Amino acid sequence: MDKGILVVISGFSGAGKGTVIKKLLSESDDYWLSVSMTTRAPRPGEEDGKDYFFVTHEKFEQTIAENGLIEYAQFAGNYYGTPKAAVEQKINEGKNVILEIEIQGARNIRKLYPESVLVFITPPTADELERRLKGRGTETEEKIAARLSRAFEESEGIDEYDYIVVNDDLDKCVRDVLDTIDTAKRQPFRNEGFIDSLIKGLEKYHK
Amino acid sequence: MDKGILVVISGFSGAGKGTVIKKLLSESDDYWLSVSMTTRAPRPGEEDGKDYFFVTHEKFEQTIAENGLIEYAQFAGNYYGTPKAAVEQKINEGKNVILEIEIQGARNIRKLYPESVLVFITPPTADELERRLKGRGTETEEKIAARLSRAFEESEGIDEYDYIVVNDDLDKCVRDVLDTIDTAKRQPFRNEGFIDSLIKGLEKYHK
Repeated sequence: MDKGILVVISGFSGAGKGTVIKKLLSESDDYWLSVSMTTRAPRPGEEDGKDYFFVTHEKFEQTIAENGLIEYAQFAGNYYGTPKAAVEQKINEGKNVILEIEIQGARNIRKLYPESVLVFITPPTADELERRLKGRGTETEEKIAARLSRAFEESEGIDEYDYIVVNDDLDKCVRDVLDTIDTAKRQPFRNEGFIDSLIKGLEKYHK
Repeated sequence: MDKGILVVISGFSGAGKGTVIKKLLSESDDYWLSVSMTTRAPRPGEEDGKDYFFVTHEKFEQTIAENGLIEYAQFAGNYYGTPKAAVEQKINEGKNVILEIEIQGARNIRKLYPESVLVFITPPTADELERRLKGRGTETEEKIAARLSRAFEESEGIDEYDYIVVNDDLDKCVRDVLDTIDTAKRQPFRNEGFIDSLIKGLEKYHK
């Protein structure tokens, strides 16, 4: 059985990447979404083991010490990280493992797992991003302004990603992400075993 | 309108790439197959302007002198080349232009058009390639042996291609090639205009 690959999905807050990932998981059994570990408190409605693994600072630092995280970062006094064991198990079982993380985490993943695929999901325009953030109707003007300011900073890192997928129509975006991962798997450096066996198989005909 | 891109399709003789390209062209209006220019004599059934542009040595060398070819090579005393004007016109019209050429030509294209996509079509195994070549029933043992020997040499260049597409089932292979080109168009270096306008659009929100 072929191994799966690590798929990093990033995108502006408000780009709709959570919705895209949810729909993608409902349409394909080949994918598994990694659950992050964090020290921050659960928000209303969040479930331990589903949204995050909620742990104490002590437990988090113990996991770091045991080399149990693929990558981790601190934001606003809290730790966020990707537990290693489950990710590697799923990849060995043939699942493509999705990590929904930001650019700094994406850079770390790229270094540690050069075969990973980095996908950036974006609305078609900046105006559309603003429209979507305001359309939620759940946040203050200040919060929205902060998200848009952060989006500008993130936009300067887009060219570090392997592929950009525009989220204009949800169904098309999910299909595009699936096609993108299938295509990334056709790159020669992800098929060294196949190429080797092809070359070895052809060698007997060489004159 | 978006410009098209240059798509190089290579593959072992017998891999079925001609059939794949024919079917792809019949399924999508977004593609155009470049017709090569050659000084070799037409074979029975070949049409001028469809299979090749058949020209004299003098005309070919004049076209070289006028910088009218994207790339050219000599095999067995004959010239083969890719006329430049038609290719660039079709790309500007938004067509993805397919060049069916071998690895040396592919390398030249890569240098001249860094945004081109190089696709290698291969049967699933070496044994399957032999089976297909013998199954044609149109060639001598010697010819088949020469093609298989050449395939070994070509196999050593596969990792210079961007994507490998396995031709096991024709319909799936055509779909995979189309998805591959669509995905390649999502790479950031092929979307600099889009990224620039996104960054410019977000700049006004930056604090």
